[in-house]
Amino acid sequence: MAHDRIRVAVVGASGYSGIEAVRILAAHPFVEISALTSEHYAGREVADVYHHMDGTDLPPFEELRPGFLAGRADAVISCLPEKVGFQMIADLIQSGVKVVDVSADFRLKDPAVHRATYGFDHAGPALVKEAVYGLTEFHRSELREARLVANPGCYPTGALLGLIPLIRRDLIEPGSIVVDAKSGTTGARRAAAIEYLFAEVNENFRAYKVGTHRHTPEIEQEIGAVLGREIAVVFVPHLLPVTRGILSTMYMRPRAGTTQEDVRSAFEASFAKARFVKLLKPGELPELRNVRATNFCEIAFVLDRRTQTLVVNTAIDNLGKGAAGQAIQNLNVMFGFDEAAGLLNAAPVP
Amino acid sequence: MAHDRIRVAVVGASGYSGIEAVRILAAHPFVEISALTSEHYAGREVADVYHHMDGTDLPPFEELRPGFLAGRADAVISCLPEKVGFQMIADLIQSGVKVVDVSADFRLKDPAVHRATYGFDHAGPALVKEAVYGLTEFHRSELREARLVANPGCYPTGALLGLIPLIRRDLIEPGSIVVDAKSGTTGARRAAAIEYLFAEVNENFRAYKVGTHRHTPEIEQEIGAVLGREIAVVFVPHLLPVTRGILSTMYMRPRAGTTQEDVRSAFEASFAKARFVKLLKPGELPELRNVRATNFCEIAFVLDRRTQTLVVNTAIDNLGKGAAGQAIQNLNVMFGFDEAAGLLNAAPVP
Amino acid sequence: MAHDRIRVAVVGASGYSGIEAVRILAAHPFVEISALTSEHYAGREVADVYHHMDGTDLPPFEELRPGFLAGRADAVISCLPEKVGFQMIADLIQSGVKVVDVSADFRLKDPAVHRATYGFDHAGPALVKEAVYGLTEFHRSELREARLVANPGCYPTGALLGLIPLIRRDLIEPGSIVVDAKSGTTGARRAAAIEYLFAEVNENFRAYKVGTHRHTPEIEQEIGAVLGREIAVVFVPHLLPVTRGILSTMYMRPRAGTTQEDVRSAFEASFAKARFVKLLKPGELPELRNVRATNFCEIAFVLDRRTQTLVVNTAIDNLGKGAAGQAIQNLNVMFGFDEAAGLLNAAPVP
Amino acid sequence: MAHDRIRVAVVGASGYSGIEAVRILAAHPFVEISALTSEHYAGREVADVYHHMDGTDLPPFEELRPGFLAGRADAVISCLPEKVGFQMIADLIQSGVKVVDVSADFRLKDPAVHRATYGFDHAGPALVKEAVYGLTEFHRSELREARLVANPGCYPTGALLGLIPLIRRDLIEPGSIVVDAKSGTTGARRAAAIEYLFAEVNENFRAYKVGTHRHTPEIEQEIGAVLGREIAVVFVPHLLPVTRGILSTMYMRPRAGTTQEDVRSAFEASFAKARFVKLLKPGELPELRNVRATNFCEIAFVLDRRTQTLVVNTAIDNLGKGAAGQAIQNLNVMFGFDEAAGLLNAAPVP
Repeated sequence: MAHDRIRVAVVGASGYSGIEAVRILAAHPFVEISALTSEHYAGREVADVYHHMDGTDLPPFEELRPGFLAGRADAVISCLPEKVGFQMIADLIQSGVKVVDVSADFRLKDPAVHRATYGFDHAGPALVKEAVYGLTEFHRSELREARLVANPGCYPTGALLGLIPLIRRDLIEPGSIVVDAKSGTTGARRAAAIEYLFAEVNENFRAYKVGTHRHTPEIEQEIGAVLGREIAVVFVPHLLPVTRGILSTMYMRPRAGTTQEDVRSAFEASFAKARFVKLLKPGELPELRNVRATNFCEIAFVLDRRTQTLVVNTAIDNLGKGAAGQAIQNLNVMFGFDEAAGLLNAAPVP
Repeated sequence: MAHDRIRVAVVGASGYSGIEAVRILAAHPFVEISALTSEHYAGREVADVYHHMDGTDLPPFEELRPGFLAGRADAVISCLPEKVGFQMIADLIQSGVKVVDVSADFRLKDPAVHRATYGFDHAGPALVKEAVYGLTEFHRSELREARLVANPGCYPTGALLGLIPLIRRDLIEPGSIVVDAKSGTTGARRAAAIEYLFAEVNENFRAYKVGTHRHTPEIEQEIGAVLGREIAVVFVPHLLPVTRGILSTMYMRPRAGTTQEDVRSAFEASFAKARFVKLLKPGELPELRNVRATNFCEIAFVLDRRTQTLVVNTAIDNLGKGAAGQAIQNLNVMFGFDEAAGLLNAAPVP
Repeated sequence: MAHDRIRVAVVGASGYSGIEAVRILAAHPFVEISALTSEHYAGREVADVYHHMDGTDLPPFEELRPGFLAGRADAVISCLPEKVGFQMIADLIQSGVKVVDVSADFRLKDPAVHRATYGFDHAGPALVKEAVYGLTEFHRSELREARLVANPGCYPTGALLGLIPLIRRDLIEPGSIVVDAKSGTTGARRAAAIEYLFAEVNENFRAYKVGTHRHTPEIEQEIGAVLGREIAVVFVPHLLPVTRGILSTMYMRPRAGTTQEDVRSAFEASFAKARFVKLLKPGELPELRNVRATNFCEIAFVLDRRTQTLVVNTAIDNLGKGAAGQAIQNLNVMFGFDEAAGLLNAAPVP
Repeated sequence: MAHDRIRVAVVGASGYSGIEAVRILAAHPFVEISALTSEHYAGREVADVYHHMDGTDLPPFEELRPGFLAGRADAVISCLPEKVGFQMIADLIQSGVKVVDVSADFRLKDPAVHRATYGFDHAGPALVKEAVYGLTEFHRSELREARLVANPGCYPTGALLGLIPLIRRDLIEPGSIVVDAKSGTTGARRAAAIEYLFAEVNENFRAYKVGTHRHTPEIEQEIGAVLGREIAVVFVPHLLPVTRGILSTMYMRPRAGTTQEDVRSAFEASFAKARFVKLLKPGELPELRNVRATNFCEIAFVLDRRTQTLVVNTAIDNLGKGAAGQAIQNLNVMFGFDEAAGLLNAAPVP
């Protein structure tokens, strides 16, 4: 099916998520990149900063001034940090531009939880309410009508893809969930910080923010929404010495009587139409490299009778399905394109 | 206190654990390295194979022939693979030589569990019975009298140091333990194998042997021994793209009423005399780099009231406290030396 | 321009170059992958071995038996090791199938040099003579007519792209060339070998085969061919702890009077039609990451008046422009396709 | 020989060189660490910032105020950046404290070169004149009497150890030297900077400052001093994705008639008394891992008749022999200790 190209602007385009969105969009068959903004690099050509984009016809990085995007874009992918992009997004929605926000600004529905988690009151509760949580596989029909998409956090994406199918079928005890997640360093912003220097991360590994990471309420909200009640989840992130990727190892108690077949069937049902979720065969396990620089998610599970524990593993690229890739997948759904348009490349392995 | 130097031989000295033992012993104040064996490199000088040992006075790698060690060593550290070293060790013990075996041959007390785990019947049940499990911090008095020490596995060392103090005080529900462990690649033998090639491990991360790793029964045996009954533990190892180190993140349900102070006090009591276990302050978390190339173990815990979960983190070097370091710590105890002799260097950070 | 798809077989498809060729071909608009062979994995589906290819419609790995490819392919990319593939290739050419050979079998024109370098007499001197050296940028017109292409080595590709333009214009003293090259580990075959284990390569760096690497005569042959006489080049390779990429830093004496503009103009002239060679601006320098998983080559130079030295830097992906990428670029030229078909993706950065 | 311990202060002790000096000094038999300063961490215990130093008895990080060190140290190792430490060092020398300065402040003897290189006039030309260039192997006798030592740069250390022996014997053409050096990231200060983030360095490699690096005049000064005339050297540094280590590959034209034996003999003569320089056997090549976390330098050479080129390779740890290690080696010489005191540990390999 042929489409006219839509004009897409990427705001905050020089960070890790932003430039990944640019890379994907530059090869997207139905998109024209119409504007790019960057606080750091305003006024410079993209290829002067990011040589890997040389050879692609792109607008330069510009400053994000009020009204800057007026009339220049049908859709905007915002990769600005929390709080910074809110007013711009409100204005864009007002003027009829569709927005996918990669920040956490529109993810948490409960104002109290938002305030407790991010430290400020959200300025636009109505917009938060309207925003569709963009975990594509579970919100396709709302996404088709959405004006504003809250793109999920990287950790929640990895966790929820492995959990929601089981919650939907009531195969596990929701109060027993432990998410042990390990992420590459691009999960943190591209900002100067000693703790993310090569010499601090290389040959090192550690947990951080044990039980207090901001993505915890997001995971709990989405599981709770399926479950119809509040739920608490143990979530412990770790910092891997790799550039991209999140592997989540999740532990939970199956309901009495839950079988291997029940679990497999739950995943198959949830992902029957999913183009990016790969349920592995018994005996196979997800690896980061298989999903690197892609929008894919690998899932496997082991039902351990001996300990009455279900172990679920998911692997995603935190910049792919965990950020820019899923943002573009959502864009595809919002505009009625093939959901996989521009997103079907295989990972470069090794 | 001055000691005459004892003569120590390292068998299987050219593998990762073996050469690490050589490196430590070469600077040990009470040890003379009297013989080294290597199947691969028999006949060659150590420094010709391992240039980092150049400048140290060492015997060459030799072939391990029967009777080879007769009269040449007061103690032997065996780094041979499972099963291969059994007869040699039996003979050594017979002839009055003390042995620390880094393989798994003498760890599992129950013959049925040994057979189920390693696939063969152990040839020397009496020796297995006699062997002291060398998790030094918990077996010091037996180690002082031991002729044969079963040096713990790397994963069990990381797990048990964080669990046994809590089991001893009955602070947790033993059936709730989940051990999510992440290891560097030297946890595998130094043998040609495609899956451990740089290009296969680098920029990658994955779980493996979910629920079926051979170290599971070893962890369960030692917890069970403290508990006085059988126990099943969920154990999932992962392969990190680092050379050395194991970080274990462990999840468990505290007994009703267990407080932060209870947990801290349990660790402090177990490790009051421990020279190598560092209980971190609240808010601090273990990192692999802090223990790299050392015999230290860092431990921290978070008691998460919200989810009623106790999270315990330990970091060790799999070749240090997880293998060669602990072997030499045990040797020190067996011979009445300062337990920390030769083992107190700080990690090279970064 | 629309084309019927040609049928392409990849022989030796499970090694690093082979599977990279499969990855690129799977997204190629004018190619249908008609057969794949692998000694190791014969009988298995590609996606069972290489999960990143799951979701792509591919033939299984099969055994390479005589006659196996008869009638099944219009072109073959052979990724077999030296000597192994010779007879198969001769037969294919005989039967009208076009071949790009990624091994070194057909690169060295002088039988004595071939024998001295690879240790055996080449069985098919006529075929060697016919084979076109596939450094695409310099052999386009011959490639259009070629039946057999000797795909260049990875190191020679990186070196020659930076040297030939200067030799052509006689801007440097040919006898002064030093090539200091640094390669990722996939330059070596995907075979079990202790020296390429993660723990041996990680956090390490070393030169190897100083002055004796097999790619030296290949570099010298191609420079000599342009120059019209024999030439000796200093070539020193190094092993980088990265998976992909070759950075070549080359030193040479400029002819008296050679200016910056002369050098730039020489590169611009040689690469006027080159789609994959990026001559950087003054002040910019090549980086491996900009060309990773692509067929691109970045080139920069510094003319240092103070030392009368011209320094030329090139960066390629050893599996891309250094192997599978260039093989497919050559295939495109041989079949009259757009030379860049299937090869224009931007590197995933970071 | 027994010594009273001298009191040593480390200024700028929380950077990469500083904390490495602390680590080495903490195990030094003749040193007591009497004071530590850090701008960032003043007021904090060392072990609170650097957990790997926990268990060692150390003074806290303090602010460097004027007069701070009065009466508190017999010697100071200054790891402050260029220019910042000058006045403090002048005052210390004045008051009889011996100083090893790890910065470049006292290295360049020619004021014009200093100004051209570092952008400011040096405030103390007399002190610069007095300072002994601390490449220990070549300045031992002056170091014994020195009050102030200019500790060499990391790159110059790696280069000069491989070059000066050859210059001394007049075995090479001095104008032909090319130094292609590759360094780990701790060659840069421990400061927040995007270009040294893990995601920017990992899986990447690049040259930088081609022909313009500040260490070039330092290399040229020291070669020139041996030679008795000015000399220009080609120096190109590269950034390796490793934490520690510099491998220098150096190319030069041998004088007519120079033999392998001449070269070997030159190195043997220069390093006859050297405890830290290891001249490898023919066929062996230096590797970063063999010198990591040590004060050692590995050297090898290949005399390539075919191209009339001598290739010299050296490997050092940029924080060891390239900074803190050599500073302490110099301290040992200045105070009449065994030159190797505290510095003889073997590298942890792997």
